[in-house]
Amino acid sequence: MDFLKPRYTPMNRRRRIYEGKAKVLYEGPEPGTLIQHFKDDATAFNVTANAKKHEVIDGKGVLNNRISEYLFQHLNDIGIPTHFIRRLNMREQLIREVEIIPLQVVVRNVAAGSLATRLGIEEGTQLPRSIIEFYYKNDALGDPMVSEEHITAFGWASPQEIDDIMALAIRVNDFLSGLFLGVGIRLVDFKLETGRLWEGEMMRIVVADEISPDSCRLWDIKSKDKLDKDRFRRDMGGLVEAYTEVARRLGILSENDNPVTGGPRLVQ
Amino acid sequence: MDFLKPRYTPMNRRRRIYEGKAKVLYEGPEPGTLIQHFKDDATAFNVTANAKKHEVIDGKGVLNNRISEYLFQHLNDIGIPTHFIRRLNMREQLIREVEIIPLQVVVRNVAAGSLATRLGIEEGTQLPRSIIEFYYKNDALGDPMVSEEHITAFGWASPQEIDDIMALAIRVNDFLSGLFLGVGIRLVDFKLETGRLWEGEMMRIVVADEISPDSCRLWDIKSKDKLDKDRFRRDMGGLVEAYTEVARRLGILSENDNPVTGGPRLVQ
Repeated sequence: MDFLKPRYTPMNRRRRIYEGKAKVLYEGPEPGTLIQHFKDDATAFNVTANAKKHEVIDGKGVLNNRISEYLFQHLNDIGIPTHFIRRLNMREQLIREVEIIPLQVVVRNVAAGSLATRLGIEEGTQLPRSIIEFYYKNDALGDPMVSEEHITAFGWASPQEIDDIMALAIRVNDFLSGLFLGVGIRLVDFKLETGRLWEGEMMRIVVADEISPDSCRLWDIKSKDKLDKDRFRRDMGGLVEAYTEVARRLGILSENDNPVTGGPRLVQ
Repeated sequence: MDFLKPRYTPMNRRRRIYEGKAKVLYEGPEPGTLIQHFKDDATAFNVTANAKKHEVIDGKGVLNNRISEYLFQHLNDIGIPTHFIRRLNMREQLIREVEIIPLQVVVRNVAAGSLATRLGIEEGTQLPRSIIEFYYKNDALGDPMVSEEHITAFGWASPQEIDDIMALAIRVNDFLSGLFLGVGIRLVDFKLETGRLWEGEMMRIVVADEISPDSCRLWDIKSKDKLDKDRFRRDMGGLVEAYTEVARRLGILSENDNPVTGGPRLVQ
């Protein structure tokens, strides 16, 4: 895949396609590709634009880039299609350009967060079975929960696409549940985004965006410690240390590796 | 159906089975029957028990008993099963005892209320197609919206029952849309409740509770006037007059009929 290297343009000349809360997308080196850049920004509670919580957490982007690379590469390897091609550097990865489906797909194994609050279930309760939820991606509306009825009525996805998305979500949940269990972590829930990948006349739905402690709830099985973004949402501190621990358990970082301060840093 | 009459017990001796916000259920004269009593109480916004709005609106119960009788009798007549047997007096009707499914089923034809707010759609916008929503019946939780995933995971209804409920809801919507259109009223949305009716070993799902201007949004087609409970929710006044107008258009009340002050009134 080194064919891409000679054609790099310096970062400040690249065309910015989209800037989100935690990532920036730039035009990629080849048609149909994009570069996904992980920022250090953390946000939460975007119920209204005013009430949003925002902080810059040094090193978060580097960790999420590495963790998401690891997870997406393994999903690709077991035949779960994703937008991921390869990691380029500490904060960036090369991805396929997809048509993002405007839904956040949440898979829950254990009651936590909004499910616990809305349905009055104690946080930590094992659910009778995994539950898939859909939220309409819209910051101004605070990403409202929607059902298949809304999704099909407003044309955000077709019934067949919803089936494909749910099948993808279940496969990702199976794989991630196993992987995290193997390193002593309980996968409480996670958020997926999906996109339509066009290959000629063929379209298929692939996993997009990222999978990282920003988008998962990960609890240490023994200590029950939270190793995810709830440390930020709930002002618990130690976010980078928790993300580093996840990376270390996955075997991404060696004991001496310090992702935050070690190695060359990109100048923005 | 007069076989029931001799066995009536005076109202104050009847066993109260359940008291809701707008209705009371009493033990019926025969096993498998109940008496549904319509109160004059109006409530709204039960997001929390504290924030609830409550008022007693003289005559509302009488009107809803008559309107609901009319609508349920016609649903029965066209083969849509309901719990309704017959009206007994100004505030009461005889119904079959069913096992209530803990879901509010909302059918929407036009954006209004929470759908308009949550999804940022202007109130009054015709929806691309009718949308069915489910809310978990739980006052303390403010009746949170749920999807089929929650319903089946928590065992509130089976997938087959959800299919049956949706089929019932569509039939009721078709009938009511036609009926109200015929009298110059737009059926914007309405809420249904459903229950399991056991007949020996057989179980079928039937429409339960009530259908009235308390549970529908009804807009006059010409004037756009609201003829429903939004008059109470939005402090517009004229609620009894609006409900009376609905009853009158349906041909339930003659021009001289005054449901509020006319005729004998039950003493509670």
